[in-house]
Amino acid sequence: MNSFGSIFRVTIWGESHGASVGVSIDGVPAGIKLSAEDFAEDLARRASGRRGTTPRHEPDQPQIVSGVYEGRTTGAPLTVLFENTNTRSGDYSNLVRQPRPSHADLVAQRKFAGANDPRGGGHFSGRLTLGLVAAGVVAKRVIENSEFAFTTRIAEIGGCADESRFDEVIEAAMREGDSVGGVVECRVDNMAVGLGEPFFDSAESTIAHLLFSVPAVKGVEFGAGFEVAKRRGSENNDLIINANGATATNNDGGINGGITNGNQLVVRVAVKPTASISSPQMTYDFEQNQITELQIKGRHDACIALRAAVVIESAVAIALADLWLRHRSRH
Amino acid sequence: MNSFGSIFRVTIWGESHGASVGVSIDGVPAGIKLSAEDFAEDLARRASGRRGTTPRHEPDQPQIVSGVYEGRTTGAPLTVLFENTNTRSGDYSNLVRQPRPSHADLVAQRKFAGANDPRGGGHFSGRLTLGLVAAGVVAKRVIENSEFAFTTRIAEIGGCADESRFDEVIEAAMREGDSVGGVVECRVDNMAVGLGEPFFDSAESTIAHLLFSVPAVKGVEFGAGFEVAKRRGSENNDLIINANGATATNNDGGINGGITNGNQLVVRVAVKPTASISSPQMTYDFEQNQITELQIKGRHDACIALRAAVVIESAVAIALADLWLRHRSRH
Amino acid sequence: MNSFGSIFRVTIWGESHGASVGVSIDGVPAGIKLSAEDFAEDLARRASGRRGTTPRHEPDQPQIVSGVYEGRTTGAPLTVLFENTNTRSGDYSNLVRQPRPSHADLVAQRKFAGANDPRGGGHFSGRLTLGLVAAGVVAKRVIENSEFAFTTRIAEIGGCADESRFDEVIEAAMREGDSVGGVVECRVDNMAVGLGEPFFDSAESTIAHLLFSVPAVKGVEFGAGFEVAKRRGSENNDLIINANGATATNNDGGINGGITNGNQLVVRVAVKPTASISSPQMTYDFEQNQITELQIKGRHDACIALRAAVVIESAVAIALADLWLRHRSRH
Amino acid sequence: MNSFGSIFRVTIWGESHGASVGVSIDGVPAGIKLSAEDFAEDLARRASGRRGTTPRHEPDQPQIVSGVYEGRTTGAPLTVLFENTNTRSGDYSNLVRQPRPSHADLVAQRKFAGANDPRGGGHFSGRLTLGLVAAGVVAKRVIENSEFAFTTRIAEIGGCADESRFDEVIEAAMREGDSVGGVVECRVDNMAVGLGEPFFDSAESTIAHLLFSVPAVKGVEFGAGFEVAKRRGSENNDLIINANGATATNNDGGINGGITNGNQLVVRVAVKPTASISSPQMTYDFEQNQITELQIKGRHDACIALRAAVVIESAVAIALADLWLRHRSRH
Repeated sequence: MNSFGSIFRVTIWGESHGASVGVSIDGVPAGIKLSAEDFAEDLARRASGRRGTTPRHEPDQPQIVSGVYEGRTTGAPLTVLFENTNTRSGDYSNLVRQPRPSHADLVAQRKFAGANDPRGGGHFSGRLTLGLVAAGVVAKRVIENSEFAFTTRIAEIGGCADESRFDEVIEAAMREGDSVGGVVECRVDNMAVGLGEPFFDSAESTIAHLLFSVPAVKGVEFGAGFEVAKRRGSENNDLIINANGATATNNDGGINGGITNGNQLVVRVAVKPTASISSPQMTYDFEQNQITELQIKGRHDACIALRAAVVIESAVAIALADLWLRHRSRH
Repeated sequence: MNSFGSIFRVTIWGESHGASVGVSIDGVPAGIKLSAEDFAEDLARRASGRRGTTPRHEPDQPQIVSGVYEGRTTGAPLTVLFENTNTRSGDYSNLVRQPRPSHADLVAQRKFAGANDPRGGGHFSGRLTLGLVAAGVVAKRVIENSEFAFTTRIAEIGGCADESRFDEVIEAAMREGDSVGGVVECRVDNMAVGLGEPFFDSAESTIAHLLFSVPAVKGVEFGAGFEVAKRRGSENNDLIINANGATATNNDGGINGGITNGNQLVVRVAVKPTASISSPQMTYDFEQNQITELQIKGRHDACIALRAAVVIESAVAIALADLWLRHRSRH
Repeated sequence: MNSFGSIFRVTIWGESHGASVGVSIDGVPAGIKLSAEDFAEDLARRASGRRGTTPRHEPDQPQIVSGVYEGRTTGAPLTVLFENTNTRSGDYSNLVRQPRPSHADLVAQRKFAGANDPRGGGHFSGRLTLGLVAAGVVAKRVIENSEFAFTTRIAEIGGCADESRFDEVIEAAMREGDSVGGVVECRVDNMAVGLGEPFFDSAESTIAHLLFSVPAVKGVEFGAGFEVAKRRGSENNDLIINANGATATNNDGGINGGITNGNQLVVRVAVKPTASISSPQMTYDFEQNQITELQIKGRHDACIALRAAVVIESAVAIALADLWLRHRSRH
Repeated sequence: MNSFGSIFRVTIWGESHGASVGVSIDGVPAGIKLSAEDFAEDLARRASGRRGTTPRHEPDQPQIVSGVYEGRTTGAPLTVLFENTNTRSGDYSNLVRQPRPSHADLVAQRKFAGANDPRGGGHFSGRLTLGLVAAGVVAKRVIENSEFAFTTRIAEIGGCADESRFDEVIEAAMREGDSVGGVVECRVDNMAVGLGEPFFDSAESTIAHLLFSVPAVKGVEFGAGFEVAKRRGSENNDLIINANGATATNNDGGINGGITNGNQLVVRVAVKPTASISSPQMTYDFEQNQITELQIKGRHDACIALRAAVVIESAVAIALADLWLRHRSRH
C-alpha cells in the first residue's frame, strides 16, 4: 500500500520519469509553522554532491500544494510535490530485455504484467524517497515540542567503521566501476516514554516497517541488535538506575516490550551496495533466451548509504510522529 | 494496535493471567478444511519440553469458537481461544516496586498509568504468541495451494553456530542461572513471484512488522542482511540465470524492490537472551528510591529462541498470507 | 471487515449457534472503571422482554476475558465474550433449500461458496450485535468526561408516530403472523465541537458506517434528513445565534461540513420489518427448482426496531468514541 | 482521514484556492487503458453549465502525474491533479467574522484552532469532489468487465418529483436569491453477487461512508429506504423467484445482510439546499459579538444536487470497486 500511519498518515506516489513525485500527509495538527524553505536542509542532505553520490543534480524544489496557509499548517492534508525536471527520454527497453541483477526490473514486470513504467526504475526508483524526506521534515515539526533530537551517521562502509577512511573505500569502489554497502545508524535523544502500541504496533515494528520500505535496506536492528544472539542475559540486561528509568547500558536501544523507555533510541540499518554498477555483469536476456553480458549505462551512486542516511532518519521521524500522536490520544 | 493485515487480518488479545488469550482472523477464504487438531503440531513446537524451554506445561487446547462449521472455514471471522489454566495467584507487587531489567514491567506501568495487569507480564507476556501460532496455522492453510514450504531452524545460540553444541551452550547458561540469545532463520521455498505492495508495504516491511511484534526480537535481516554492508555490488548482486528469474546467488533473500522474486525467501531474526534470569541483578527500587538487588523467582526459559522459532515462522506465514491475498485481488 | 475504528477499534466475531460471540476493543485508555455489571443495563435493553420482542431469553452474561484488572481498564485490548447457551441443534438444511425472502440466507451461501454456517443466520445473526452493545458501553465510558448524553427513542412504527399506539400496531402485526418496521432516533446532547475528520471520515460517514452494519438498517439521516430535499436554503439554514455556535434551528443535526458543531447530534435510522414472519411466503426452492411456499418456524421479533434501539445508540457511541480520541490526538 | 478503501484506496487533498486539488489511488490493477480524455465526460457532468449550476467555469483539466504509462495503468499509485486556475484573491476575513449559516466556516475554525484556510471554504469546498469524480472514472474502469451499469438521476427537487418541472422549481428559487434541495438516485445494473464484508463493511456501510463524505449530503437510503418503517414484513419482503436469486420486488435495493444479492442496487441520497444563498440571513458576528445580517456575495449553485449527481455516482463506483477487489481476493 502507498500509505502508512494511523494518525500521521503518509501517502506517496510517482515514478522516476513521470511528471512529478509527491507525498500527501494526513493528520498534521493545525497551526504548525512551515514553509518551503524548511525542507531545504534535509533535501540537500539527500541530494548531496558529496563524493560517492550521484552527480544528477535536480533542483528538487518542494511545492506545497495544500495544507499550508499563511505559513502555518491548516490541519487539512498537507501535500508536497516535486517536479521531475531532469528526466531523460532514453530507451529503456533494454531493461525489459536484460533485467538488472538485484534490481526491481524483473519483479516489476512480473507483478504488473508488463504494464509497469520501466523508465529509471519507475515507481521503484530511489527518487520516491523525496516524499519520505519531505514527510520527515513535517514529522520533526510535529514532535518538535517533545524535543526529540536526531543524530544520524554512517557507521560502516564496506566493512570499514573508521569514518576518516570512508572516502577512500568509496573511491576504490568507484575506480573499479563498483559500488559498496554501508550501515546507517540513527539515534534519538530526549525520547518520550510509552510510544508503541501492543501487540502488533510495537515501536520496533512501526519503525522497521517504514525503514524496510526504503529501497536497498536489507537489515534493521535495535540497540545491540544481532549482537544479542551471542550474549548471556546477565550481560545483555539493561539495569535501571534511577526513577526516570534511565539504564546503565542500552542494549535494548531504548525499547522494552515494544514500548519506548525514555533512553536513547538506537536503530541501525544495513544498506546494500547500489545494484547498478558500471562494470559488466551477467544476466538473463529475455530476447535471446540465454545468459548474456549486461553493461549498465548512466550515473549511479557508488555508495547509496550516504544519501540514504537522511531518508532513514526521516522514516524514523515519521514513525515516531505517528506513535506520538497515537499515544497522545490515550491521555 | 492489536490488529495486523489488510485482507488476512489478525487481531490478538489477552493477558498472561487473565481468563484466556485469543486471536480472531478476518478474511479467511471459505471452505478450507480446519479442525482443532490441525493446531497441535505447531502448538507443540511452541510449548516444547526440549531442554532449555520452560517447564510450565499447559495443555494449550485451542478452542475454535467461530468461523469453522462442519470442519471447514465459513468465511466469517475465525476465532481461537486458549484458556489460561495454569495461572498462579501470586503476588506481583514486587514487579511494580522492582521492575525487572530489560523487561516491559516499567514501560507498561508508565504507558498505562499504573493500570496495567502486571501478573506474569500481562499483555506483554510471551503467552500472547499462542494467538500468533494459531493464526500462523490458518495462514499456512490459506497459502497451501501455492505450495510455500517453510524451513525454520536455530542458526546460532550464544555465538555458537554449530547445532550439535546448542544443548551444551544452553546448559552452561542454565547452570549459572543465566540465559542466552540466539538467531532464528526461516526459509520459504516455492515462493510466488510478485508479493509485496509498493511503496510502504514491501515484502520486507510486512514481514518485519510482524516479526518485531514478537517479544525479544531485536533484529531482522533478509538474505545476506547486515553482511551487505561489507560488500561490493559486484559480489552482492544476484545474477539472473533463467527465464523464471532464478538467481545464481541469493543475497537478496528472494526479494527485490520489496517484491518477492520467486527465489527462496530467507529471513533471520535476532532473539535476545531471556531477560528474566535467576541470578541476582541490580535494579531501581521505586519504594526505597535506590538501586537494590533483584532476585527473580519462578520458571523461565534459558533460551527463548528455541520456542520463538515456530512463532517467527508463524509471523512469516501470516505476512505471506496477507500479501498473497492482496496480490491475488489485483489479478 | 470485522473491525472498525482508527483508535477506538472494535473487532467482532461469532455465529448465532457457535460456541460464543464476542468483541475485542483496542485503544481503550487505561484506568477507566469497568466491571461486568456495567453492561447489564444496555444488555437488558437489547434483550428486553417488552412486547414485540423475541421470547428467546438468554442470560447474555458478559465475560470480560482481557483488558480489565482490578476493576479498571488496563489499556490492553478489552475482550468481552458471550456464550451461546440457548442454541438449538435443529435442522437448518431447509434454509439452504428454501432461502428466506429478504434474509441473508442466499447471499451467505453464494458469497462463501456454501461453506457458511447457516444455523440461525450464522454470522449474519442479530446475535452478533451483543458485541456492539458491549463495545458501546465501553465507548460511553471513554467519552464520559465529555458529558455526551444519549437519548434514544422509537420515533415511528409502521407509519405511526404516536408512541402510545405502538403496542397496538405491533400487536396487530403479530396477530397476523406479520412484522412491522420502525424508525429509531438517537440524540446526543453536550456534544464536543470539532469531531469528524475531513475528507472521508466526516462525522456522518463514521456514524453511518457503523449504523449500516447493524442488521435490518436501510436508511440513515441526520438532522432534517430527507426533508432537506423539499426545502429552500432560506428555511433549511441554521442561523448561528451566539458565540458558542448555538443555532436557532438544527436542520443540520449538529454537523456542518462533516464536523460536529456542538449542537445536539440528531440521527434517525430506518429499520425494516423483521424478514422472518410466521405467515406463509413464496420463495425459490433450490431442490425442486421452482417457486414454493415457505413456512418459517421458530420465534421472531414482530418489531426488531424495539431491540435495535440500544444497538443503534451503541453504534453512535462507538463512532463518537473513535472520533473523539482522534480529535484529541491533534491537540 | 483523507483516505478510503482497503484495496482500491483513494486519498484526496487540496483547498479551493490553493495551488491544486488532487487524488491518488492505490490498488489499481495494472494494464487498464486510461487517458486524460477518459475523465472528460464525468468532469463535464460535474461542471455542467446546466441551469441552476454555478457559472464558475474552470477548465478542470486533469493531469495524470503518476500511475499511467503509454496509455495503461502501471499498477503503481495513480495520481490526478487539477490546478486551481480561477481562484480569486479576495478578502475572506468576513467569513471568519460572520460565519455562514449551515456552512463549515465556524467548525473549520474551531477544529483547526483558526489555522484553517478559509478561502472559498478551503478543504471543505465542493471543489474537492473533483478528485472523487476522477477516482470514480478509474473505479468504473476497474469494475468494467463485471459490466456494472450506472444510471443516476435527480429523483426530486424541492419536493417536486416531476422532472419536467425541475427547471421551473430551480428558477423560482434563483429569482428569490434562494436555493433548493434535492434527491439523487443511483441505480446499478448487472451487479455481482457477494460484494460486502461482514460485519462492519457491509455494502451499505461502505457505500454510505463514501456518500456521507460528499458535501451537503444529509441522508442515504437503500431500496425502499425510510419507507420500510411504515411497512409490514409481508409487503416489504422480496420474494426470490429464480435460481439466480432474482426477486419479484426490490425493497432491499439489491442488498441482504450487507451483501449484494445480484438484483439492481438502488441508493437514494438527500442533498440539502446550497447553504450559500444571496438573500440576506442573520448570523453571529464574532467581532461585534451580536447577531447581525449577513449578505453572501459571489456565485453559487441554486441546486447543488444537479452537480452532485455525478459525484454521488462516483462515490458509489469507488465503493463498489473496493468491495469487488476485496471479494475477488477471497476466490
